[in-house]
Amino acid sequence: MSAAKPRTAAVLGTGTIALGWIALFAAKGLDVRVSSTRADVKEHVTRALRLYAPSLPDGAVPVDLLMSRLSFFADVEEAAAGAEVVQENVREDLALKQELFGRAAQAAPEALLLSSTSTLLPGDLGALLEDPARVVVGHPFNPPHIVPLVEVVAADGAEAAMVEAAVDFYRFLGKRPVVLRRAVPGFVANRLQSALLRECIHLMREGVVTVAELDEIVTASIGSRWAVVGPFRAFHLGGGPGGLRHLMAHLGDGLERGWAGLGTPPVDDVTVRTLLDQADEAFGAYDYEELAIWRDAAQNAVIAAVEDVGKPN
Amino acid sequence: MSAAKPRTAAVLGTGTIALGWIALFAAKGLDVRVSSTRADVKEHVTRALRLYAPSLPDGAVPVDLLMSRLSFFADVEEAAAGAEVVQENVREDLALKQELFGRAAQAAPEALLLSSTSTLLPGDLGALLEDPARVVVGHPFNPPHIVPLVEVVAADGAEAAMVEAAVDFYRFLGKRPVVLRRAVPGFVANRLQSALLRECIHLMREGVVTVAELDEIVTASIGSRWAVVGPFRAFHLGGGPGGLRHLMAHLGDGLERGWAGLGTPPVDDVTVRTLLDQADEAFGAYDYEELAIWRDAAQNAVIAAVEDVGKPN
Repeated sequence: MSAAKPRTAAVLGTGTIALGWIALFAAKGLDVRVSSTRADVKEHVTRALRLYAPSLPDGAVPVDLLMSRLSFFADVEEAAAGAEVVQENVREDLALKQELFGRAAQAAPEALLLSSTSTLLPGDLGALLEDPARVVVGHPFNPPHIVPLVEVVAADGAEAAMVEAAVDFYRFLGKRPVVLRRAVPGFVANRLQSALLRECIHLMREGVVTVAELDEIVTASIGSRWAVVGPFRAFHLGGGPGGLRHLMAHLGDGLERGWAGLGTPPVDDVTVRTLLDQADEAFGAYDYEELAIWRDAAQNAVIAAVEDVGKPN
Repeated sequence: MSAAKPRTAAVLGTGTIALGWIALFAAKGLDVRVSSTRADVKEHVTRALRLYAPSLPDGAVPVDLLMSRLSFFADVEEAAAGAEVVQENVREDLALKQELFGRAAQAAPEALLLSSTSTLLPGDLGALLEDPARVVVGHPFNPPHIVPLVEVVAADGAEAAMVEAAVDFYRFLGKRPVVLRRAVPGFVANRLQSALLRECIHLMREGVVTVAELDEIVTASIGSRWAVVGPFRAFHLGGGPGGLRHLMAHLGDGLERGWAGLGTPPVDDVTVRTLLDQADEAFGAYDYEELAIWRDAAQNAVIAAVEDVGKPN
């Protein structure tokens, strides 16, 4: 098998992440073997494809064409048999995931075994396999058919060729895989999100800004900035012609003083009530699906805009 | 005077922020009275305008036309005389800013007095004025001719009409002003940036990712997300049809557990050396000006892309 030119992939589960992968895998021309015990699995997947088909990264694809590339199996072994890649997306239950990987590995001894987990570590997922390091985390950012990032996280002792195969597979899908140098709980993007959210909740709780005002501040400043350059490159450019070296010399202990002043809000009744009340006011009038479709279209437009500008010289 | 249709503005200082404001003020057709004691002020400003003219928000403007709208004064009183708005951007030295606002207020008793300060609080800046609350912070995000956000921060007891006038002025410039409900050190956007950067530096220091990999992770995920929806709206959509209410019930103490696991890196020799070495590797090959021009063009493209998609229904 070649993960750079795969033909058949199994998708375990039919939750939100699984549905995004199914849409993308089918849009890229793969035969997709869906494993689910849902009685209404075809209707369930069709509904999701209708929602996602217009915002697929290479443009809209007819739902019938996508559906024609799918087959459905109640049994994990049947779904995995003949698949070059297995992407697992069941609920965050370690024992369940271990069992499924054990069964998939039996049915597809050569397949690349990938997990979408956001909270479990790769070394634990393959516990029932002869080589536990055979399971690689390929953690997407929701929704996986839109957001380019996949965090690739391997267990200690994983073969380099297998990690490369995972990277090749995600590149084939048009994703931007980044291999973490070691596994940490929460990986990277969710930890960064969590760090930012803590300060957002602090400032909201302290009455400095409302939920709606905070979102406006971010989209009008650091959001569009970080769509273009990451935090480090932004920091480097903030230093002027002397770059980061000049900035670090100039800041002195300013970084640490700034960090010491950040908030550590409790998630108590006041926090939750204030957050939910302000969220109702900010988003309550919107239909969830319409808002999600709008977000996906806008995010695709942002990604395309950055690509159009091209790389710096 | 009307801050929604101003004709004349004074700009105090000729640092990076001042230069961005000068370019934008002139591009919007204002007569700009620049206060600077630099002997080479005209050459200095002309160089900056050449750099900024192509990335002005409504499209390129000839440098000669921009320059024809500027006049230069060594004296603060002369610059402020006749200006409807004074935007102060000198170095972060409280005594200096207080003195300049005292002198500007004498020369222009009716002018709107605005400060670009990022670290000082509005109540302190007007200490030498009859009404200390007359100075309002209008804190831009660098570069001010590109990034839409202006944080408007007033002292306790500031007149509502004056805060409105500041908002009108920044709207006239095409900015997205957000009024903070109270003043906190660092305001909002820089505090959020600081919170994220702390975790970035932690993950870099711990060897999970390099500087370049971390930037790739952010631009490929949360960056393009936050250019479109802020952190709270993203969080709300992450909850599915049940929104934030469902998510908060589902998370339990997950938020606080996640926060407890975030890093608190020391800014010691190891941190600084690792950061600078990796930054050299990531950005060392780029010319600063070329990289800044590219960032500005790409950020303008992102802002335009989101505007083109329009608001959700």
